Amino acid sequence: MKKILAVLVLALLLCVVMAGCGAPADSSQAHDAPVDAEQAYDAPADSDRTYELSDFDAFFDKLIALDQAMSMFSWDIETGGMPPGAMESRASTMATLSAERFAMSVSDEMLNFFKTVEAAMDRGEADDITLGIYRMAKSGYDKQMAIPADEYKAFTELTTSSYSKWEEAREKDDYSIFAPYLQKTMDYQRGVVDYRAQAGMVYDNPYDAMLDDYEPGMTVEMMDAFFDELRAEIVPLLHGITEAKGGPPAHADFLDRSIPIPVQRNVSALIMDTVGYDLDRGSVGEVTHPFSMSFGQSDVRITVNYSEDDFFTSFYATMHESGHAIYSQNVGAELEGTILDTAASMGISESQSRLLENTIGRSYEFWEGIYDEFLSVTEGHYDDISVREMYEAVNAVAPSLIRITADELTYSLHIMVRYEIEKMIFNDPQLTAEDLPALWDEKMHEYLGLTPGSYAEGILQDVHWSYGEFGYFPTYALGNAYAAQIQDAMRKDFDLDATISALDFATINGWLTEKIHRHGALLEPSQVLAQITDEGLNAKYYTDYLKDKYSKLYGL
Amino acid sequence: MKKILAVLVLALLLCVVMAGCGAPADSSQAHDAPVDAEQAYDAPADSDRTYELSDFDAFFDKLIALDQAMSMFSWDIETGGMPPGAMESRASTMATLSAERFAMSVSDEMLNFFKTVEAAMDRGEADDITLGIYRMAKSGYDKQMAIPADEYKAFTELTTSSYSKWEEAREKDDYSIFAPYLQKTMDYQRGVVDYRAQAGMVYDNPYDAMLDDYEPGMTVEMMDAFFDELRAEIVPLLHGITEAKGGPPAHADFLDRSIPIPVQRNVSALIMDTVGYDLDRGSVGEVTHPFSMSFGQSDVRITVNYSEDDFFTSFYATMHESGHAIYSQNVGAELEGTILDTAASMGISESQSRLLENTIGRSYEFWEGIYDEFLSVTEGHYDDISVREMYEAVNAVAPSLIRITADELTYSLHIMVRYEIEKMIFNDPQLTAEDLPALWDEKMHEYLGLTPGSYAEGILQDVHWSYGEFGYFPTYALGNAYAAQIQDAMRKDFDLDATISALDFATINGWLTEKIHRHGALLEPSQVLAQITDEGLNAKYYTDYLKDKYSKLYGL
Repeated sequence: MKKILAVLVLALLLCVVMAGCGAPADSSQAHDAPVDAEQAYDAPADSDRTYELSDFDAFFDKLIALDQAMSMFSWDIETGGMPPGAMESRASTMATLSAERFAMSVSDEMLNFFKTVEAAMDRGEADDITLGIYRMAKSGYDKQMAIPADEYKAFTELTTSSYSKWEEAREKDDYSIFAPYLQKTMDYQRGVVDYRAQAGMVYDNPYDAMLDDYEPGMTVEMMDAFFDELRAEIVPLLHGITEAKGGPPAHADFLDRSIPIPVQRNVSALIMDTVGYDLDRGSVGEVTHPFSMSFGQSDVRITVNYSEDDFFTSFYATMHESGHAIYSQNVGAELEGTILDTAASMGISESQSRLLENTIGRSYEFWEGIYDEFLSVTEGHYDDISVREMYEAVNAVAPSLIRITADELTYSLHIMVRYEIEKMIFNDPQLTAEDLPALWDEKMHEYLGLTPGSYAEGILQDVHWSYGEFGYFPTYALGNAYAAQIQDAMRKDFDLDATISALDFATINGWLTEKIHRHGALLEPSQVLAQITDEGLNAKYYTDYLKDKYSKLYGL
Repeated sequence: MKKILAVLVLALLLCVVMAGCGAPADSSQAHDAPVDAEQAYDAPADSDRTYELSDFDAFFDKLIALDQAMSMFSWDIETGGMPPGAMESRASTMATLSAERFAMSVSDEMLNFFKTVEAAMDRGEADDITLGIYRMAKSGYDKQMAIPADEYKAFTELTTSSYSKWEEAREKDDYSIFAPYLQKTMDYQRGVVDYRAQAGMVYDNPYDAMLDDYEPGMTVEMMDAFFDELRAEIVPLLHGITEAKGGPPAHADFLDRSIPIPVQRNVSALIMDTVGYDLDRGSVGEVTHPFSMSFGQSDVRITVNYSEDDFFTSFYATMHESGHAIYSQNVGAELEGTILDTAASMGISESQSRLLENTIGRSYEFWEGIYDEFLSVTEGHYDDISVREMYEAVNAVAPSLIRITADELTYSLHIMVRYEIEKMIFNDPQLTAEDLPALWDEKMHEYLGLTPGSYAEGILQDVHWSYGEFGYFPTYALGNAYAAQIQDAMRKDFDLDATISALDFATINGWLTEKIHRHGALLEPSQVLAQITDEGLNAKYYTDYLKDKYSKLYGL
């Protein structure tokens, strides 16, 4: 991700320098400089004009084309197409497209679209898809318009500096390099909450404003209940495991066997074929950090990183990214070509990747089902390992300092550390960036029993805060919680264990498509959840799942 | 190229369906549908407005960003990123971007730009780069505006059908499937010449209008002189060779040796490193049909096709594409980010690829220079072959029916066949599509001594005419002619043979950059030629070069 981040930061910087992307109140400038477009929008003849919804088809086609173009440039960068010397010119191109896209999202055309939909709603004529597009676009518009243009522009400039200072701070393991920039970012985002309140967007808790940006409708009240349950159930469970005697070995030696890359590629192909990732509408790139990218349901790609000495990481990354991709591929055809041809939220998307990676992929039944084919494609490398040994090895628990390599049990505790700190930032105005490392270390020790030996292994390990992305981390934990609730709902409808050991992914994906995938972003996360349960977010399913699984595994 | 052609054809079709790209007189529609942008352009307050040249920076940034986005989608398709199932949605996205780009090229903003440059010219204040941009954009604008919008739109629709009919005709080897579409294409392009005349664009010969689209300033008068020389000198030379006894074998067996792909990749890397293709600003893809693609001087990519049993094809394709790429990489930095950051013409670009592939790459001196390293990277596969044997083998002459696999000597004769037919189309209004196959066969027999056994090996072998691209083929021959004149000029300035055998590409590329590359599209082809010779296009250098080389090779 380093390379693409650097280019995107440069794009952001150039975008600001070009004075296009950061100026919503002045957005007409970004279109075609010499024409004073506002004259047209404000002309009396136009303001009386009545639009049909179909008048906006070309507008949204263009908006989506720009999104796809930017995604394509990102894919090219991330998969190694862009030569290193092109970074600056590519950033400039992406900044131009980004400015154009931004200008459209806050344009008078967009406003006319809203008015047209509202008129159709009054007449009771707006269909669900139009309403979904309206909801999504209007939310972004309102949030953007609440912020004074000059402050937003200053913030985009700040994040470019902040990102490079974070990089430098992490390399030098010197938090003081990053702290002043994080402080400004905190101040800006605290201000965002105030500006939204002035614009009528009132939240029960100020941090709700941040949560809502990544998981629409999510609140501190819901997340607190979630993390309270987690804290009460998982922390003691983890302590029990780390203190237990006679459990399975924390790390099986065979996990470190060196596996040739061609063999790993064959394993990935087996996984993708087994779990139902459709390569007629997908493709696979090889990169350093795996990710998935959707260009709409007919083109959903994943990437995998192969390392000879780290076979199981690529194995589970393939499972994880396939989960995201299968979701995107199964969005309803009626949403293709609209801004709704995407996931409902980051949390819902993460539920699909975690369900496949962990709930299914680390189950005994999955290993039972795939065992023979796995032995066959791995060409003797694991012939001496039983299903039971495999199952135990891929579920080993080992508290660690680093979130991205954490095991299934401890992962959400890493998120809890970040959630609690973010919540404090928005609820304690006195809290400064200087206070955060101590908080971090304290919480890491309390929940995971570890203390970072450096900032790089502690508070500086993740990029998110350098961009001011408060509210992003909780979606990772939500994905785990949603996955547990989905699992429970599936078990009511069919025998999930038997379906997994039969590798019957047609049944699993059919169920997920009906309840979740086909809706794309037409439904909000809470509405998606309502398709599978009538009780909303409830962490108990997740903690029960973990307690059950790990108690058995560790003989507690 | 099949896959990208299919997508592009679909994009064109959708573009037409969307009624954006094919309607110059109605171009404001393509921008943002609901806003009647023309109101702004026509407003009295605006028509009096005085613009600065810098007012158009954002306009051209956006135009170039759209071009690069379309290129990026093409690159992705061609290098296998796009999954097959995405063809339709990708075509729709590309059609949207293409419509937007087209609308800009014929927009009122563009007209305002022209007026602003003209005013600056009147004041003597327009710099060379501005004038170059003006020349290039104005030429396209004038040509487009000369054609009635509905006729242009009908033509874009025609070419989509015409392309698929050409494909079908070639597969079924049935010219009658394609003929009616080719006839309509001929009629349209004949009409283009008339419309341009009505708009004041007068050409000495009607076919000049077509030549000018691909090689600005090129005329039938110049091309006739060129092909007259070729016909007089090369046809007899070829006859002499094919009738000669005791010449070197037409095809050395060692050319067919099977070479593992990893070895071929190493050879390509050696070539690129040797000839000065800068991979810091370039990258290499693997495809079926090699091509090069420039996203501006900092990102110029090539592709190579490796086939175990066809090593020398990929060897010379790497040379050829590197020649195009080195040109694009060495455009002057002051042209970066402008529409002039490209080749002066297709003919000039082809001169750079042919110079590297043939003049240099098939010379005795090149093989002498690269021999030891070549033996080293080919790991014993050619240790038994001498420099002389290699030189003779890669210069074997064998008249064939197919242009793209033709040898250096016969290649331009294939072009002569096409040139003469195209010239007749525009000078004999009675000539119909039905008449062309007989003409083709007659000329093939006359110049190459061969008669196609099928339409697929004859008139249906190339895609160009299905798109109505008359005037395109001659640029291939011009590239060869320019290369010979460039070679002659280089020999006056330094010892080319010694430079080649020393593999001193710094000297060669330095000379080419100074005379040709750095100017990009700032100069017209004739002005580029004037940097290296004061006599304009003269085929004698090319025929002398061929006669000298092949007489010696074949002991004539």
